[in-house]
Amino acid sequence: MTTDPQDDASTASKASNVVEASNVSADAGPTAASGRGGAGRADPFGWLDGAARARAEAGLTRRTRPRVPDEDLLDMAGNDYLGLTRHPEVTGAAADAARRWGAGSTGSRLVTGDTALHGELEAELAAFYGTEAALVFSSGYAANLGMVTALAGAGAHLVCDRYNHASLIDATRLAKAAGARVSLFDHADAGAALAALGAHPAERRLVVSDTVFSVDGDLTDLPALARVCAEEGAALLLDDAHGLGVVGDGGRGALGAARIPAAERGGIVVTATLSKALGAQGGAVLGPQRVIRHLVETARTFIFDTGLAPAAVAGALAALRVLRAEPERAARLRETARRLAAGLGELGLDVHAPDAAVVSVGAPSPDAAVAWARRCREAGVRVGCFRPPSVPDGRSRLRLTARADLDEVEVKRVLDVVGSTRPT
Amino acid sequence: MTTDPQDDASTASKASNVVEASNVSADAGPTAASGRGGAGRADPFGWLDGAARARAEAGLTRRTRPRVPDEDLLDMAGNDYLGLTRHPEVTGAAADAARRWGAGSTGSRLVTGDTALHGELEAELAAFYGTEAALVFSSGYAANLGMVTALAGAGAHLVCDRYNHASLIDATRLAKAAGARVSLFDHADAGAALAALGAHPAERRLVVSDTVFSVDGDLTDLPALARVCAEEGAALLLDDAHGLGVVGDGGRGALGAARIPAAERGGIVVTATLSKALGAQGGAVLGPQRVIRHLVETARTFIFDTGLAPAAVAGALAALRVLRAEPERAARLRETARRLAAGLGELGLDVHAPDAAVVSVGAPSPDAAVAWARRCREAGVRVGCFRPPSVPDGRSRLRLTARADLDEVEVKRVLDVVGSTRPT
Repeated sequence: MTTDPQDDASTASKASNVVEASNVSADAGPTAASGRGGAGRADPFGWLDGAARARAEAGLTRRTRPRVPDEDLLDMAGNDYLGLTRHPEVTGAAADAARRWGAGSTGSRLVTGDTALHGELEAELAAFYGTEAALVFSSGYAANLGMVTALAGAGAHLVCDRYNHASLIDATRLAKAAGARVSLFDHADAGAALAALGAHPAERRLVVSDTVFSVDGDLTDLPALARVCAEEGAALLLDDAHGLGVVGDGGRGALGAARIPAAERGGIVVTATLSKALGAQGGAVLGPQRVIRHLVETARTFIFDTGLAPAAVAGALAALRVLRAEPERAARLRETARRLAAGLGELGLDVHAPDAAVVSVGAPSPDAAVAWARRCREAGVRVGCFRPPSVPDGRSRLRLTARADLDEVEVKRVLDVVGSTRPT
Repeated sequence: MTTDPQDDASTASKASNVVEASNVSADAGPTAASGRGGAGRADPFGWLDGAARARAEAGLTRRTRPRVPDEDLLDMAGNDYLGLTRHPEVTGAAADAARRWGAGSTGSRLVTGDTALHGELEAELAAFYGTEAALVFSSGYAANLGMVTALAGAGAHLVCDRYNHASLIDATRLAKAAGARVSLFDHADAGAALAALGAHPAERRLVVSDTVFSVDGDLTDLPALARVCAEEGAALLLDDAHGLGVVGDGGRGALGAARIPAAERGGIVVTATLSKALGAQGGAVLGPQRVIRHLVETARTFIFDTGLAPAAVAGALAALRVLRAEPERAARLRETARRLAAGLGELGLDVHAPDAAVVSVGAPSPDAAVAWARRCREAGVRVGCFRPPSVPDGRSRLRLTARADLDEVEVKRVLDVVGSTRPT
C-alpha cells in the first residue's frame, strides 16, 4: 500500500553483461561492499542500506502494490490475455480440485506430487500445441531452468538471443556453470544466430530464444531460426510464454503461427506458461517424447521441486478447454491489440503495430514513465511501466496488454486515459 | 501409470562435484555426446537415447506415478507433515480464494500479481516465525535462488554445507557465475564452517545450510553455526523447508527450536516452504525488513516470476492459522516419528532416532530399496525410496515421513508392512 512507483521487469536486463559476468573470477572480481558496522560486531547486512540508497537516488525503487478485492481499476497491465483467470469454469475447476485433491501436491512429482490431473493437462497441452508430449513444472521460470540445463551440459554451445527473458538467462548461466559455452546474437536476427553457431563448433549446439518478447511483444523470426537450426543440426529451445493462447490459429502458439514444418519440429522444444493466457499458475515444457522423458529423469527443477498444486493444474486445464471451445478468443485478443495500437498511434504516441498482445508506448524518461503510469492509475486504468534495467534497450515505456474480454467502451476509455495523461 | 521404480530426490547429489563443476571452462570441458544421426541431417536429440540407455543400465530410471483420486494407500512418503493438505479449512480457503481472486495472480508481484492476501500471509508468517518480515515466492526453489543470489554478489564468499538441498546448490552456482567464491564444509560441522570462512577473507561472507536435511531429517548444529556467524560477522542463510511446522515450540521452526538469541537474528535469513507442513504451494523468505526490501527490488526469481496463485496463498494462510490454534500438532508429529523409528529399530532395521519428521531406513542396495518400496506399496503403504544420486552419502534407503494425523492403528500397520517386506 505504498505510493512508490510501480515498475515491472519481464525481461532480461543487460543480457550480455549478465551472462558475461560468469567469466569473472571470484579472485579477480570486484570487492563486495563493506559489511562492517560503525563499531563493535560486524553487521553482515549493513551494505544493504547503501544499496537501497543508491537505487533510490537512481530513481529505481520498486514496491509491490497489493490489489484489493473488487478494485475499480481497468487492468491493462496483467498477462491474463484471454480473460480466463476469473472465468467461472476456470475458477470453478480450480476450487473443485483444491477440495478434491487437497491444497497442495505434497511432494516432488517423482514421489507423491503427481496426480492423474497433471497427466490429463499434459496430454491435452501436447495435443493442442502439436507436440508429442508435455511436462508441467511449478512455474515457467522452473520450466526454462529445467529445459536448458537438462539439454545443454558440459561442452555444449548455447546460442542465445540478446533480449531473452531473465529466466532463460539464469538457465544459461547455470548451463555455463556446468561447462557449456554461451554466445549471444543480435535480437531476432537468425543470420546472426547462424554466424554464432559457426563460430564455435561443438557436437551439441542449441539456439535459445523467446518467441514473443515480453516487453514489446515483438516476435523472433521463427521460420528463419527453425531453418537455421534444422540445417545446422542444432536444437532450438523456445520460450512461448507470451505466444500460447495469443498467436497462431486458435491461440495454438508460435510454432503453429510460424507454420514450422513437421520435419523441423523434432529438434524443437518449447516452454509455455500456465499463468498468462491460461489464467492459472505454473509452466510446461512441450516437445518430443524422448526430451520429456529426459527431463523427468534429469531436470533438477522437476526432480527437486514440489509438484504444481492441483488447483493450478485444474484451472489451466479448464482454461485450455475454454480456449479450444472458443478459439475466436485469440483472434479477438490480437484484434484488440491492433485497435489499441492504432488508436494510440492516431494520438501521436510512440507505438508499433503489435505482433501479439502487448502494446508498448515509448516514454521520454524513466521519471516521465512512472508519472504517466501513476496518472493513468488515478484515472482508473492500470498500465505497466517498464524502466531500466528491465528493458533490454534502456528505453522506458508504458506496457499495455490487450485482453480478449475488453469491449469497445473499455478500449475507448484506455485511449482517452493514456492520451489525456501523456507527458507534456 | 507405469510400473517402473519410483524414486525421489530431495537433496543435493554430489554437492562438491556439482559446485566445483562451475570451475570447468567450456573450452577445456569434456565433449558433449555426439548429436549426429546415422545418415543425412544431424539429429540434435540423438544423444538422448544413449543417455536413457545408460540410466536404465545403471538401474536409475525414474518415472512419475500419478495418484488417482481416493486411492487406498497409506501415505508415508509425502511432506504433508501436519496432515493439513486436505484439512477442510485449508481446502475451503483455497477454493474460496480461487473463486474470489481468480485462478492465477496474472503477473509479477511488481505489476499485477500482488494481492492483499499475499500481504496477510507474509505478516502472519513473519509474526509466527519471529522475524521482522517475510516475502512469498512461487516455490521454495525460487525462494532459495532469490535469497542467495540477491545477498551474495561479486566478491562474496559463500560457505555451504556439503549436503545442502539441490535448490541451494543451484543458487550457489548462480552466485558463483556472478563472481562469488564458494567453499563447502563437512556436513553439519560448525567448526569446519568457521575454518572455511577463515580460509578466504572477504568483505561479504555468508554461511548457507539446510536446518533439517531432507533425506535423513537430521539437523545442522544451528546454535554453533549461528554463534560462528555472529562472531565472524557473517550472514547465515538457512533453508527451513523441513523445519517450519515440525520443530520448535508449536512448529515455529528451527530458529525457535535452537533458541537463537535475538542478538544473533539480525544476520540470519531463512527460507520456508508453503508446500510441506503448510499443505499448499510456494515458498517464503523470512528475515530482517531491510533484507526483504532488498529482495523485492533485486531478487530475479521474485521480479521476473508470476506471483503465487491466490488459492495457494490462502491455503497456506489457513494452514498457518490451524497450526496456531492447534500447536500440539507439531509435538504429535515428532512423537509419531519417534514411535515409528523406535518400532522399526525393535524390528532390527537400520534407523536413527529422528530429529524431525523424517525416518530414514537403510537398505542394502539400490535394487533392494526399489523392490522393498514396491512390496510396501503392494501391501498398501507408500514409502519414499531414495537411491544415488539423490542421496548425499550414496547409501540407498527408504524414507518414511511421519504425519500429525497418523493414529495408533496406522503406525502399527506401517511397522507391520515395512518389517514384513524387508529384504531377506
